Amino acid sequence: MQHKHIIVLSGDERNIQVMKQIATKGMHITAVGFSNDAIEHDYITKQDISAVNFSTADAILLPIAGVDNDGNIAVQDSDKKLALTKELLEQTPENCLVFSGGANQTLRKIVHSANRTLVPIFERDDVAIANSIPTAEATLQIAMEETKQTIHGANVTVIGFGRIGTTMAHLFHQVGANVTVAARKNTDIAKIKTLHYQAIHSAQMKDTLRHSDITINTVPALLLDKNALEAIAPNSLIIDVASNPGGTDFNIAEQLGIKTIHALALPGKVAPITAGNIIADVLIEQLNS
Amino acid sequence: MQHKHIIVLSGDERNIQVMKQIATKGMHITAVGFSNDAIEHDYITKQDISAVNFSTADAILLPIAGVDNDGNIAVQDSDKKLALTKELLEQTPENCLVFSGGANQTLRKIVHSANRTLVPIFERDDVAIANSIPTAEATLQIAMEETKQTIHGANVTVIGFGRIGTTMAHLFHQVGANVTVAARKNTDIAKIKTLHYQAIHSAQMKDTLRHSDITINTVPALLLDKNALEAIAPNSLIIDVASNPGGTDFNIAEQLGIKTIHALALPGKVAPITAGNIIADVLIEQLNS
Repeated sequence: MQHKHIIVLSGDERNIQVMKQIATKGMHITAVGFSNDAIEHDYITKQDISAVNFSTADAILLPIAGVDNDGNIAVQDSDKKLALTKELLEQTPENCLVFSGGANQTLRKIVHSANRTLVPIFERDDVAIANSIPTAEATLQIAMEETKQTIHGANVTVIGFGRIGTTMAHLFHQVGANVTVAARKNTDIAKIKTLHYQAIHSAQMKDTLRHSDITINTVPALLLDKNALEAIAPNSLIIDVASNPGGTDFNIAEQLGIKTIHALALPGKVAPITAGNIIADVLIEQLNS
Repeated sequence: MQHKHIIVLSGDERNIQVMKQIATKGMHITAVGFSNDAIEHDYITKQDISAVNFSTADAILLPIAGVDNDGNIAVQDSDKKLALTKELLEQTPENCLVFSGGANQTLRKIVHSANRTLVPIFERDDVAIANSIPTAEATLQIAMEETKQTIHGANVTVIGFGRIGTTMAHLFHQVGANVTVAARKNTDIAKIKTLHYQAIHSAQMKDTLRHSDITINTVPALLLDKNALEAIAPNSLIIDVASNPGGTDFNIAEQLGIKTIHALALPGKVAPITAGNIIADVLIEQLNS
C-alpha cells in the first residue's frame, strides 16, 4: 500500500495530536502553520506554504474551526498570513478530501468552487457521539471542582436526552448521583425510565429543580429561563454545555446568586489526546475507504 | 426529648459543617476557638473558654487531628492558646463523650486520666468505608485534571483491595476505565475477579504497570519501589493515597521522570460538606444510642 499524503494547513494545537496519531499509521504529513517543535516525527515534514507540493495530496486538514469569513486560516506565527483559495485547492488531485471541524459558508464556497469534497468532521453523528464521552467527563470534573459534596448521592438534573444528554446521564448515574433527565419527547421519557433514571417533561421541571444540587443543560434553547431559575436553590450549580448562547439566562441567574458555568469545546480542553484521536480515526477511515 | 449539649473545642474548618449538621438535629452547640462568622445559627453559641459551662456537656468535639503532643488544640486565633486538660474534662458529667478524628498518646492519656470515654471517629470501620467515597472521587478528579485523555478507556491499576481500594476500583470501573487491581491475598484476588476487574498478585505487577496510564496506590507499604517504577511508562501518572510516607519511592519516580501525586486527607479537601456529614452522623448516632 502506498503511503497517503496529508497536508495540514493549521496552527491549531489540537491538530498536533491528530498528526501524531495518523503518522503512526504510516501516513506522510506536510505541516504548514506550526511554529513549535512538538511535532517532530519521521513522517511529519514542516514546510513553508510556498514549498508545498499539492499535487500529491490525498487530503488537506484545516483547523478545527475551519477558516474565517475571509477564508483565512489561523496559524501560530500570525505574521505569516495563510489563505485557503480556489486556486490552491485546484492544485490538488480531483479526489483530494478537505477536512475541517465545523464549516462556515466561506469554507463551503471555496471548496465547492474548486470542485473538491469537504468533510466537516464535527457534523458527523459518530464523531458527535464519540465526543460526548470527553464532554461528559469534563462536566463531571467541573462538577467535582465546583461543589463541596461528593457526586455520589447528589441530585443531578440533566436537561436534554440527545447524544450529549444520554452520555451525561449515564456517567453521573454510574458515579452514584440521583439522576433526573428532563426531555421533551414522550419516547425519550419512556427510554429514560428504562435506564432507571427519573424522567420528567422539560415543561415541568420546577419541582425537580427545587431539589437539584447540580443542573446540566445540553439543549441549545432557553429552557433555564427566569421562571425555571427562580425554582432552583441558590446554592445549586448550573453547568451549561449547549453551544452559544447556551440555554440559560445567565443574567437572571447572576441576579439570583446562582453559580453558572458555560462550558464549551470541552473535549479539546480537558482531553486533547482523546479529542485528537477521534478526529484522526475519521481521517484514517475516510482515506482508507 | 431534652436537647443535647455539645462543646466544640476547635478551630478546624471541617468542624463547621459538623456543627451545622448537628444543629439541624436540634443539638445545642457551644463553639470555642472559631474566629469566623460562617457558624451563625440559632443553636450555635460562640463563647470564650472561660465562660463555658462544662457541667451540662453531653459531648466534647475536638479538631479532626485531635491535640498536639503537649495537649494543645489548634484554634483559629492563634494568640489564644487552648489546652485540653484532665481538670477541664473533670468538669463534665461522667458520661460525657470526647470525639476526635485521630488520637495520639497524649490525647488518650488526658481523657483516660479524667475517666471519660474517647471516640476516635476515624478509627471506626464504618467511617473509613464512608470516607472511601469522597477519597475515590477526589482521586478521580485528580486523574481527570492531570491527564490529557478520558478516563473512559484508560488503563488504571489500583494497588490494594482494602476499604479504599475496593471503592476506588469500583468508581474507575463505573466511569469506563480498564481496571486492574493488585492484591496480596488469594481471597482478594478471587473477589476481584467476581467483580469483573483484572486481578494480579501485587508481587507480579510489572507487566501490568508497563501498560498502566494511571496507577493508584492505596497500600501504606513500599510497593512502588525502584523495581516496580522502572516498569512504568514515563508518561504514566501515579496517585498515591496511602498515609505518610505513602507506598511510592518518590525520589526514584522523579529521577525516572514519572509524575507522582501524594494525595492525603482528600475528603476534607474536596468534599468538606460530605466529610463533615460523615462525622456528624457518628456523633448523632453515638449520642442517641
